[in-house]
Amino acid sequence: MFIPAIEGQGTEEQKQKWLPMAHNMQIIGCYAQTELGHGSNVQGLETTATFDPQTDEFVIHSPTLTSSKWWPGGLGKVSTHAVVYARLRTDGQDYGVHGFIVQLRGLDDHSPLPGITVGDIGMKFGSGAYNSMDNGLLRFDHVRIPRNQMLMRLSQVTREGKYVQSDVPRQLVYGTMVYVRQIIVSEASCALSRAVCIATRYSAVRRQFGSENGGPETQVINYKTQQSRLFPLLASAYAFRFVGEWMKWLYIDVSKRLQANDFSTLPEVHACAAGLKSITTSATADAIEECRKLCGGHGYLSCSGLPELFAVYIPNCTYEGDNIVMLLQVARFLMKTISRLVSGKMPVGTAAYLGRVEHLMQCHCEVQRAEDWLKHSIILEAFEARSARMSVACAESLSRFSTPEEGFGEISADLVEAAVAHCQLIIVSKFIEKLQQDIPGKGVKTQLENLCNVYALSLLHKHLGHFVSTGCITPKQGALANEQLRSLYSQVRPNAIALVDAFNHTDHYLGSVLGCYDGNVYQKLYEEAWKSPLNDTVVPDGYDEYIRPLLKQHFRTARL
Amino acid sequence: MFIPAIEGQGTEEQKQKWLPMAHNMQIIGCYAQTELGHGSNVQGLETTATFDPQTDEFVIHSPTLTSSKWWPGGLGKVSTHAVVYARLRTDGQDYGVHGFIVQLRGLDDHSPLPGITVGDIGMKFGSGAYNSMDNGLLRFDHVRIPRNQMLMRLSQVTREGKYVQSDVPRQLVYGTMVYVRQIIVSEASCALSRAVCIATRYSAVRRQFGSENGGPETQVINYKTQQSRLFPLLASAYAFRFVGEWMKWLYIDVSKRLQANDFSTLPEVHACAAGLKSITTSATADAIEECRKLCGGHGYLSCSGLPELFAVYIPNCTYEGDNIVMLLQVARFLMKTISRLVSGKMPVGTAAYLGRVEHLMQCHCEVQRAEDWLKHSIILEAFEARSARMSVACAESLSRFSTPEEGFGEISADLVEAAVAHCQLIIVSKFIEKLQQDIPGKGVKTQLENLCNVYALSLLHKHLGHFVSTGCITPKQGALANEQLRSLYSQVRPNAIALVDAFNHTDHYLGSVLGCYDGNVYQKLYEEAWKSPLNDTVVPDGYDEYIRPLLKQHFRTARL
Repeated sequence: MFIPAIEGQGTEEQKQKWLPMAHNMQIIGCYAQTELGHGSNVQGLETTATFDPQTDEFVIHSPTLTSSKWWPGGLGKVSTHAVVYARLRTDGQDYGVHGFIVQLRGLDDHSPLPGITVGDIGMKFGSGAYNSMDNGLLRFDHVRIPRNQMLMRLSQVTREGKYVQSDVPRQLVYGTMVYVRQIIVSEASCALSRAVCIATRYSAVRRQFGSENGGPETQVINYKTQQSRLFPLLASAYAFRFVGEWMKWLYIDVSKRLQANDFSTLPEVHACAAGLKSITTSATADAIEECRKLCGGHGYLSCSGLPELFAVYIPNCTYEGDNIVMLLQVARFLMKTISRLVSGKMPVGTAAYLGRVEHLMQCHCEVQRAEDWLKHSIILEAFEARSARMSVACAESLSRFSTPEEGFGEISADLVEAAVAHCQLIIVSKFIEKLQQDIPGKGVKTQLENLCNVYALSLLHKHLGHFVSTGCITPKQGALANEQLRSLYSQVRPNAIALVDAFNHTDHYLGSVLGCYDGNVYQKLYEEAWKSPLNDTVVPDGYDEYIRPLLKQHFRTARL
Repeated sequence: MFIPAIEGQGTEEQKQKWLPMAHNMQIIGCYAQTELGHGSNVQGLETTATFDPQTDEFVIHSPTLTSSKWWPGGLGKVSTHAVVYARLRTDGQDYGVHGFIVQLRGLDDHSPLPGITVGDIGMKFGSGAYNSMDNGLLRFDHVRIPRNQMLMRLSQVTREGKYVQSDVPRQLVYGTMVYVRQIIVSEASCALSRAVCIATRYSAVRRQFGSENGGPETQVINYKTQQSRLFPLLASAYAFRFVGEWMKWLYIDVSKRLQANDFSTLPEVHACAAGLKSITTSATADAIEECRKLCGGHGYLSCSGLPELFAVYIPNCTYEGDNIVMLLQVARFLMKTISRLVSGKMPVGTAAYLGRVEHLMQCHCEVQRAEDWLKHSIILEAFEARSARMSVACAESLSRFSTPEEGFGEISADLVEAAVAHCQLIIVSKFIEKLQQDIPGKGVKTQLENLCNVYALSLLHKHLGHFVSTGCITPKQGALANEQLRSLYSQVRPNAIALVDAFNHTDHYLGSVLGCYDGNVYQKLYEEAWKSPLNDTVVPDGYDEYIRPLLKQHFRTARL
């Protein structure tokens, strides 16, 4: 993030000076924004950058303990430079948070420069995961940097200390945000597909109960309880992949518009990226742990690959925007969109359905038989109606409070649910759009149809309360969806292994004994066990010191 | 489990011989049941114990790779003996799984005895957790033990090799199972209370957004989104504690009955213990991770205490009965109970409400205003009606299949949901029963009332689909419950810290910088960071070897 920060917020001159050095590894840079006491609220950062007109320098300082920079990756032990976000003070005023390039360590001996305190923040979740890198802390004691190390593309401080805003539109920075979040969504699909691949393959190997006449027991993947937990996750891995691909298009589209000074789609795109980042990462984190449980006891072994996958993945729910904060941003967008409908402003893109809100508030689901739930149009309308009705209900609740802000705080849990409904609709609709394209490979489309329906109907079953209590579907129709879901599981079952093989993960990449391609799980588990360092000796270290005295009743006098 | 196994299944003679040795640590024993290929299905174990009448011995053998004993704690490196579960073969017949005392290692040098292969199964989830003990693997190559090392309280093999069953009722072994599961439920409350204590205290320290006129930001515990995630978990910690206490009584009661050869309550007690084990441990595992997320980024630090708590806790969902298998056992009990209603057999204990099934199928919830949801009778009837209706719907579905077994497999996911509904009812009802007792301490009862209502109404909100689609409540009543829940959160808020302080966890026991009693979180985080081994040197190890050559552009020729 050191380089993108300079690319996005640096002047041409700054880019020409700093980027080649960073690219050639003559310096190692990191992005130092988060502080010990400040994460989601970037405007609350405390580090100060005070302009000193006498020397033409900024004085970077950490005025409080909570202003210590905290978490940046590689900051603690490796980086020589950082883009530091600090409150710009000049001319007797606070101009809010800006970026500054600050050198942290000497290029000859790597010692921290005067006024710089830098170190590692300590151990983190898991045995490997982010423990294989340092996350740093950083404090400044009146560290001076030249004025030209403030990133000055969007605003400048003159030699005299005057603050000047450039005419570069601020909205341009949102482009990078969409780009980063699109990558996170794609990575969610990737992480989820790994977990699902492991759990699916192992579920076909593992047998338990159901032996008839002394024959082999039943493969656990054949149990409906296993299918009802596993197959929605398999469908989600595909769903997130397709919505990730679509987000790539979205990023390109919005970038083009931004370059042409067209900011019309930006609020919708921003809400979309924030919401999808949130629900795909939350769902993926939960799904990895569910896949571990689906592997029974052996999922708890490190060699299952799932503990490490989980420990590495879960920070996604917090970084680049805490998932609940993201959903509240989506909710704000939805409330604004609805409030503007009365003035005839038609919503665009993924919010376009809200333009049909009158219809969606009164439409009736036409499902009469379980198979009716296979129709895309029916699924789509149910999801649109549910999302629209939940948003409208929130908007009505808000109007009963004396100020919108008070209402927004009070019903924020409901707003989060409305935002989730909206984002799930986006994913369902992008899956359906994908199916309207040409899909190469014989029979592939049928399988994807099944997964799309599994994805949508399992969400409908999970959030049945929303669908039924908003009147979008009747209890009877909910039961029919559940019945159809069971039948879909039976259709997915014969292709489940092929559908995870299609992710094309190598055994090396999966890093899981349980998920190995050839299914020779038990042999590999047994071989892996013998690699445990505890097995280096047959009689364990410490036997003479601890175990033997115990067994021989040679207790020492207690020394406590 | 070595000692309880001998106590439960050993003869008087065996108890007198082996228990003193185990108690005095002259031998170290473990309980070796689970195999590489067999966990939940104990009857599928493959290890064999074949009686040889010529030598009056059993031959213990591992005929396949999957028959290797796998997971027993302390088996790999420490234990000298094990109670090994193996298929008893004598007289040309297989009599199923029985327990045998087998010596594994010599008492003089701790070497594995001839025919014994024993070792550790390798690393597990987390950095500490269960990695601080060995979990073992064990294989037998025709290992001979004397006949009198078969645990013979319930059945015997005579000198001639004849299999004889004693008249000791088999049901007695269920007593121990209830005992163990009661402990697991109590421990769920304990683990959950630790996580909730950490997250609640830190939520009062952490501030983010909402600063007015330059004042401090808002404590995150004041956000409704935080409350709606945190307070139901706080309420659950109390709920699980009370249901755990009640289970202690249940264990004593059933033990007395078993001793008097009264087996009438056993099926109900067994279903109850299985179900409560399942839903309290699943809820607690999820809750610990949710508490971690509620602590934002800092929850990911090891010093938050939450990663370790999670890694240590999650095996509870799998061991002593996989949680889904447990719920299917509850569902079987519910289906049996309902099928017997027609013959006038009235259910007892926690299933007694099913005796009022006719009323529960047609009753209407009387809630008209949000405050009506505070009435215990209304909450209880809603939970009873929902559980009864879900069970009856499953029973009706089952009757449409050609065999009950086929139906049970096909709708097992629905059966699991019905079992969850039944178990949640038990917890809600025991919380309400607790409140009908005398509660010492001024104002304590009011706080517990609030938590009880939070627990029940948050479940109702989470499972709204079940309540509404079974017609137990109307959508309007669901919305009123949600409204009441918001108001309850406001009432819990001022006492939230006191309610977690009441768990009386010391800072040492909590092991969490974020959850420290004095709230001096940031200072402690900062001090803790400097203890990281990476901070032992200012310039990191490896600088000269890796970082300096990079920065100085002294690239070596690639050796790949």
